Amino acid sequence: MSTPATPHRTVLLTEGHGEPLAGKTASCLLRYRASDIVAILDSTQAGRTADDLFGTGGTIPVVATLDEAGPADDLLIGIAPPGGRIPQTWRPVILAAISRGMRIVSGLHEFLADDPEFVAAARDRGVELRDVRRNDERDVAKCQPFREECLRILTVGQDISVGKMVTSVELARGLRARGVDAKFIATGQTGIMIEGDGCPIDRVISDFVNGAVEKQVLARQHHEVVVVEGQATITHPQYSGVSLGLLHGCDPHGMILVYEAGRPHHMGLPHIPLPELGRVIEAYEALAGFRGGGRVIGVALNSRRLSAAEADVERERVRRELGLPVADPIRHGSGELIDAVLALAARRRGA
Amino acid sequence: MSTPATPHRTVLLTEGHGEPLAGKTASCLLRYRASDIVAILDSTQAGRTADDLFGTGGTIPVVATLDEAGPADDLLIGIAPPGGRIPQTWRPVILAAISRGMRIVSGLHEFLADDPEFVAAARDRGVELRDVRRNDERDVAKCQPFREECLRILTVGQDISVGKMVTSVELARGLRARGVDAKFIATGQTGIMIEGDGCPIDRVISDFVNGAVEKQVLARQHHEVVVVEGQATITHPQYSGVSLGLLHGCDPHGMILVYEAGRPHHMGLPHIPLPELGRVIEAYEALAGFRGGGRVIGVALNSRRLSAAEADVERERVRRELGLPVADPIRHGSGELIDAVLALAARRRGA
Repeated sequence: MSTPATPHRTVLLTEGHGEPLAGKTASCLLRYRASDIVAILDSTQAGRTADDLFGTGGTIPVVATLDEAGPADDLLIGIAPPGGRIPQTWRPVILAAISRGMRIVSGLHEFLADDPEFVAAARDRGVELRDVRRNDERDVAKCQPFREECLRILTVGQDISVGKMVTSVELARGLRARGVDAKFIATGQTGIMIEGDGCPIDRVISDFVNGAVEKQVLARQHHEVVVVEGQATITHPQYSGVSLGLLHGCDPHGMILVYEAGRPHHMGLPHIPLPELGRVIEAYEALAGFRGGGRVIGVALNSRRLSAAEADVERERVRRELGLPVADPIRHGSGELIDAVLALAARRRGA
Repeated sequence: MSTPATPHRTVLLTEGHGEPLAGKTASCLLRYRASDIVAILDSTQAGRTADDLFGTGGTIPVVATLDEAGPADDLLIGIAPPGGRIPQTWRPVILAAISRGMRIVSGLHEFLADDPEFVAAARDRGVELRDVRRNDERDVAKCQPFREECLRILTVGQDISVGKMVTSVELARGLRARGVDAKFIATGQTGIMIEGDGCPIDRVISDFVNGAVEKQVLARQHHEVVVVEGQATITHPQYSGVSLGLLHGCDPHGMILVYEAGRPHHMGLPHIPLPELGRVIEAYEALAGFRGGGRVIGVALNSRRLSAAEADVERERVRRELGLPVADPIRHGSGELIDAVLALAARRRGA
């Protein structure tokens, strides 16, 4: 792994977070970079632990003030506030962190560096404001062939926030554990915070999305396998453009479809039911067919709403329905999905 | 039509333009706003006429200097220079126009207002630098139903630069000529220069593309028909994200597919053949099916490379192959395509 964007001693700001999904950044950092997190800052939950709040991160304490957090280098905004804007109540905390010389790290669309008060305070104290979504991508995709020997895998989804990033990280780790030189390519702010590199693709100017993704692959294709983090889904009424640019920009050999069992409609859009998995697969394969023709080779089931027994039933049902390997990477491990990736690699070598 | 972005007395800067397609902005403005154009500035072609250079625009003169152009309000950059950047050789012309008090209008990705020398000169002279692609779109699509009585038509394409904008303008004009309250919704810089409103969708941050298109429709749905200008194509390896966001953002009732006869491969990508029209239609209808399920109802043939006789043969061939009305809006008029739009409107009223 390259140098992470989050060095040691990070305080996660999750003040007032209610709905667990709003804390996706926090929970993913707790899962994959727990050793960097010294405390969670949320005065409404002080005294509890990371495990209590996010179901991961063990005994990392939830504290009410920066003083209680102890020495730290970074304050990282760990939840997406409503409307994507920094609430007034957070401003004193951010300014206090700056005055302690802490770097502020944010993945929001609203940039810290566009806020005159934060900028002035950071300049006075010599502190960095790091906006992970900031980018200056201006290259149209070149569409030249990638390195033949690098296998490109893309995670795709039935909806937003189903676990594409977690699946991608687990696949890359699992492949490395089997001795394969695999690299996770982050395409969202949380993935970038975990991996230390990548491109915040939903913040790229639309004309350059395909090109920005292609550039990520070109820079990493010396690896044997790249696992590209998908975003949203090409069937999504709000974000489909991001997803299709990603698909065509990395032109995957194989895709892993990720979904959450028991979700009836698009998140936040109760009037728009989710399309069936088979239809999502058809759409992805049809559109992939305008480039290299990659296929869906496995399904990652997010079964967090199910009991262990229910998850097994669901897994078996989808396996039969789609004729593909199915696993919840967290609950079942990603072994079956890694087998599918390695089988694809073997078929391509044989071809 | 609302207030045009280009007032009267415009000089079109096309200095050194070679390939006709690089002059798409110039040729479309000459076609639809000829009465605003006083001269074309191209020292390499001085003495010729708009018709000589662009096949439209009549006797509008091509001149070598601003002096020869006579009094004018605007200097409009009419060609896309290689790399999208303003060439060094244009800088003195732009600065001279500013010093005369002319507004500078540009549709390039590189903004005039990011150029310190232009900004300083414009400030001194009290002149506006208008970057048509500049926008601050930050809204995710709301995905609430549109006004039921407004028919939404989208032009889609087999490739870039096939004539989606011209087809859209011709459809809206033709509908108005038949007494229908139709409105062209521009989604690219040239369309915006012609119509005076719209959104430069390929310059919008990818997360907000669907929302920006939806907002355009919401603002115009008091019309009986809106004709939304498509961009690129969802099958395009470089720009597909833009195109899909556009499709889902406006959720059309019907689509008109535009293509150029005799084009073998994607423009600028000689190693990537164009997909067959039938496959493009299938892909668009499949993806539209995740929203309202609009269908392709007609085909606009761009036959500029063909003789009149060849164009008739091609028209008949595609008509038979696809079972859809086919017409070159410039050569044959858009009557048949307008009939298709009106038939769709009638079917919806009947339904």
